[in-house]
Amino acid sequence: MTGRDGGADIGPIGNSPVVILVRPQMAENIGTTARAMANGGLFHLRLVAPRDGWPQSRAWRAASGADRILEEATVFDTVDDAVADLHHVFATCPRPRHIVKTMLTARGAGAELRAICGRGLRAGLMFGPERAGLDNEDMARADALIRYPLNPDFMSLNLAQAVMIMAYEWWMATDDTEPRFLITNETHVATKGELNNFMRHLIHDLDECGFLRNEQKRPGMVRNLRHFFERGEVTEQELRTLHGVVTELTRGRKMRTP
Amino acid sequence: MTGRDGGADIGPIGNSPVVILVRPQMAENIGTTARAMANGGLFHLRLVAPRDGWPQSRAWRAASGADRILEEATVFDTVDDAVADLHHVFATCPRPRHIVKTMLTARGAGAELRAICGRGLRAGLMFGPERAGLDNEDMARADALIRYPLNPDFMSLNLAQAVMIMAYEWWMATDDTEPRFLITNETHVATKGELNNFMRHLIHDLDECGFLRNEQKRPGMVRNLRHFFERGEVTEQELRTLHGVVTELTRGRKMRTP
Repeated sequence: MTGRDGGADIGPIGNSPVVILVRPQMAENIGTTARAMANGGLFHLRLVAPRDGWPQSRAWRAASGADRILEEATVFDTVDDAVADLHHVFATCPRPRHIVKTMLTARGAGAELRAICGRGLRAGLMFGPERAGLDNEDMARADALIRYPLNPDFMSLNLAQAVMIMAYEWWMATDDTEPRFLITNETHVATKGELNNFMRHLIHDLDECGFLRNEQKRPGMVRNLRHFFERGEVTEQELRTLHGVVTELTRGRKMRTP
Repeated sequence: MTGRDGGADIGPIGNSPVVILVRPQMAENIGTTARAMANGGLFHLRLVAPRDGWPQSRAWRAASGADRILEEATVFDTVDDAVADLHHVFATCPRPRHIVKTMLTARGAGAELRAICGRGLRAGLMFGPERAGLDNEDMARADALIRYPLNPDFMSLNLAQAVMIMAYEWWMATDDTEPRFLITNETHVATKGELNNFMRHLIHDLDECGFLRNEQKRPGMVRNLRHFFERGEVTEQELRTLHGVVTELTRGRKMRTP
């Protein structure tokens, strides 16, 4: 009935923050929330008074395999019950008004949650219902509020999108991927010597065909070509292809002009 | 027919990257993509060979008011046509295989896109169809690929979620919100002098009622209380409330024990 077919293997479930959906309205959003949680390595879901009851098969259909999160989700009547065993609770709130509270960005919250969970404490992330968001009573139960820096002219954020950004920042808080790198797979980045071999090949053939016959312009033209080929990392495989291109173009020319 | 009622005012449309959906399948995902774009300040949408044609009213229903983006979206037959006027194109690709290419994280891409657009060049962000993602021919037309650091055990990312993360990082690339701060609204953070006034009030009343009668333990107890009240920023309003709490508790005790 709920489509509980096991779903995907979503990876190890460690001491990660609990996602608490407070009075969620649409079962689809609970499913897409579970999917976003799995994307970012959040696995513990709690529901406070879901409007249409629980479980709901529509949630499983929207979860794209994050079934384990839905199956292990627990339901509570009140926010107080849902947070009773937690040490820290952060609540997302796009537009806090008339409130005195610590505010965190999503990135700041990601870092603090890693620190809290790293100390063996249990943390929760509270998200409000789709239309109204968390009410003042809910927010008073949080240590801090999270507000995402996003376009202030268009703050209407889908519930699962809000969960996605927090899950992403939770994951990014310990990620150390270089922001830019070259993937090379089977091949390797060429050395300067290998690149120079190709440049010698190219210049030799360009000399032969007469492209560099203007002795005055020759050094500048060669330098420009070198600048072009030096601009980024070149792989050994690409150099082999480039050698082949020059060789074949030269041979073609020789065959046409015997 | 397409629900073109104008939608929300989504803010100024500047020189921001073009989002290119390549062979998108579901019109709903085009709508939720537009919503995510508006959240992060991306406004230019191009569609390459959308499966069900264009426009589609279901897209407008899913866009939650980001109608302007859908109304100004343009449709192309091929990727080459869609990127012809752009200077840089990045393509999202969760699992590149057998490919030699520059890889960027979403955060790295956000920073590079800001730099590119800041130079007055036009940039594009390419996203593949829901199931298969971009094919090898599509990716060969990109300067670099973007791979999000996310849970490698659950990489199934909804199209609009993928757009959301890039739109968020585009926005974050120029955001300078402090990761943690106290919002105080009408009230102000109390000075140490104001906090000390309250501590004197509290300690005086605790002395009067006998709570601090053990002279040996008194300094430590007072110090512990001070540590508690000094732990975070306290506002003037909170201090007024705390003064009231102490005064009223004292008065209540005096009335009960005449």
